[in-house]
Amino acid sequence: MTAADANPFLKQYLMTAGPTPLPPRVSQVMAEPIRYHRAPAFVEVYERVLERLPQVFRTANDVLCFAASGTGAMESAVANLIGPGDPAVVASCGKFGERWAELCDAYGAETGHLAVEWGERVEPDRLDEFIAGRERKPRAVYVTQSETSTGILNDIRALNEVATGHGAVLCVDAVSGLGAADLRQDEWGVDVVVSGSQKSLMCPPGLGFASVSGRALALAADNDNARPPGRYYLDWARTAKGQAEDPPNSAFTPAVTLFMGLDVALELIFDEGLDRVFARHAVLARAARAGIEALGLERFGPDDENANVVTVAALPEAIDGAMVPKLMRDRFGVTVAGGQGHLKGRIVRIAHCGYYGAFDIVVALSALEIALRELGHDAEPGAGVAAAQSVFAASGAPEPVAG
Amino acid sequence: MTAADANPFLKQYLMTAGPTPLPPRVSQVMAEPIRYHRAPAFVEVYERVLERLPQVFRTANDVLCFAASGTGAMESAVANLIGPGDPAVVASCGKFGERWAELCDAYGAETGHLAVEWGERVEPDRLDEFIAGRERKPRAVYVTQSETSTGILNDIRALNEVATGHGAVLCVDAVSGLGAADLRQDEWGVDVVVSGSQKSLMCPPGLGFASVSGRALALAADNDNARPPGRYYLDWARTAKGQAEDPPNSAFTPAVTLFMGLDVALELIFDEGLDRVFARHAVLARAARAGIEALGLERFGPDDENANVVTVAALPEAIDGAMVPKLMRDRFGVTVAGGQGHLKGRIVRIAHCGYYGAFDIVVALSALEIALRELGHDAEPGAGVAAAQSVFAASGAPEPVAG
Repeated sequence: MTAADANPFLKQYLMTAGPTPLPPRVSQVMAEPIRYHRAPAFVEVYERVLERLPQVFRTANDVLCFAASGTGAMESAVANLIGPGDPAVVASCGKFGERWAELCDAYGAETGHLAVEWGERVEPDRLDEFIAGRERKPRAVYVTQSETSTGILNDIRALNEVATGHGAVLCVDAVSGLGAADLRQDEWGVDVVVSGSQKSLMCPPGLGFASVSGRALALAADNDNARPPGRYYLDWARTAKGQAEDPPNSAFTPAVTLFMGLDVALELIFDEGLDRVFARHAVLARAARAGIEALGLERFGPDDENANVVTVAALPEAIDGAMVPKLMRDRFGVTVAGGQGHLKGRIVRIAHCGYYGAFDIVVALSALEIALRELGHDAEPGAGVAAAQSVFAASGAPEPVAG
Repeated sequence: MTAADANPFLKQYLMTAGPTPLPPRVSQVMAEPIRYHRAPAFVEVYERVLERLPQVFRTANDVLCFAASGTGAMESAVANLIGPGDPAVVASCGKFGERWAELCDAYGAETGHLAVEWGERVEPDRLDEFIAGRERKPRAVYVTQSETSTGILNDIRALNEVATGHGAVLCVDAVSGLGAADLRQDEWGVDVVVSGSQKSLMCPPGLGFASVSGRALALAADNDNARPPGRYYLDWARTAKGQAEDPPNSAFTPAVTLFMGLDVALELIFDEGLDRVFARHAVLARAARAGIEALGLERFGPDDENANVVTVAALPEAIDGAMVPKLMRDRFGVTVAGGQGHLKGRIVRIAHCGYYGAFDIVVALSALEIALRELGHDAEPGAGVAAAQSVFAASGAPEPVAG
């Protein structure tokens, strides 16, 4: 694959679930002259970000920041809690959920893996039964909030009740969901929530976050009495100690430009208001779902009005599904994601997490329709866009966050 | 510490050894609309960076890229080679060298730590004796090329001969030195060199690199037959596998904006020419050394005409040393680093690694002189700058890299 088959003069539209489009103000601040991470001019930014981030997690925890992809933050939840032979349970329903199992295996856990079909939710009852059937109770249970590979949103509140009911801490991958679908960490009593910068938080990739309860921090410290920790960069205690200093002091050189961007992105989020942000995502998802159905496509996965991060359409078997995102990108400049793993060629994913507004959905549906018709799928011209417009008209078309 | 005590209207000059100043073109490219990491428009950039990076390491290895601080890349050299009970040797002479020992301890190594006085080099003979005296031969030996905390440059070629002579792989922290002081990985036969983006490579912090020989990769794979790897995100094999695909495919979402910057920075480095880059650093260091001496300060550490990354001055005991960088920054807008650990208040460090030119040294020496005089040190007005100018005049004042 090279850029040679694409038309370089097309106006580009990024419609993926990470990296997501950046508000211009976020992009611009990263182009300012770089600051020394120990100088007041940066420490001020760092402090403000550390103060604001917990509000997105809806927690009183300090949110630990790592210069890492979201997977680095996920790994911290395994590396700090699980060592060789420790019992862990993973409940997955897609590619990113399966990553939890790979992580647990890499750390030598005694991993129980409840692997639900891709495209289904993890039902709390099934998790309950699964844990009850394990010989040893898990120290930690690993789940995914928004499974980006399938568009599924799991019920974290209910899954947390199950995990804590069995005495385990729940660790939630909220990489794509945080800031798009509500997750009330403290109200629901969730011990560990990890996320990343490049999805709903409207920043480039490169920052990973872990919001860790006191109970989970204590569990991590317990482990270390028994054996060498086997981690350093992703060690929660080291990063927590630095961030708790006055002024906060990052344990390692922070990714300065990404923090500059995050500072602006958080300002935009709080200017819009977190509840309005969630409401905007809900309307965008509703419009995307309506559009897909109007194009004569089936939605992939269960009907779920809370699945507001990525809308996934199953592609007709009669067409070459892998060509859909390729045509949309190379011929029309609209970059959406197709399927991963065994879903390659079978689905198309329309993202609406982060800096997305009504007319992004219009563009995505319009390009999708053209591509589908070109591949022989008989969609009524304009039907997808019309359906989305109706949703926006009825809801008072949400404006995208000011950027 | 807040920004309140600084004058926000001062023109700012960043003179630290990481983050280092960014060429404007590097800053600007990061403000472009973000690209999807799997789309040809980014894959093209990613491929070019992966092709060019090894030339800076002077190696035929693939250079493994991680979204992480330099410490993440350092950790990869421990996590992939060392497990509980494995013998390792660390030879340190400053804060960053000591980090190797902390990393080895975190992984449960049987760590032999040759801790040389801060401000001295690690002498190859001492390392040789130290290893010879160990009961078990180390699998790996960990050293620092340029010790940023003291300005020392170690003789990596000689240290590598010692380590390999004892059958160990040498792992070199070249975070600050790579691209400023020559390190010929393949010619010298060094197994592992790690680095970061935010020093001589003229990019923001957030990318870590590991150039790993086939021998070291095999050693890492050997270990994994014996026990769970205890690593995932920093696993060499996983990242190597993705980068070796055609087109290269990063194992995790790469830090897209930082790669965009690195692509431009590498272009600037190769336009200037690596040998000319090293020559520029040599002249800048010579000027900094001459200036410091002309200000009546002693240089910290041994006389070494190859120590071209950071020039460190010992501060007179008669003055309040901690005030030197503070005055320079808050009153004159010139940010330099003071000492770390027990060197706090005792030294000042003038960086010249990366995007630095002759007049950056002039500015640093000028601000240093004003601060020193204000604190009561009797320096002859203009003496430091005059000495630096003489060096530049004699050498044909190197221009900074085009930015």
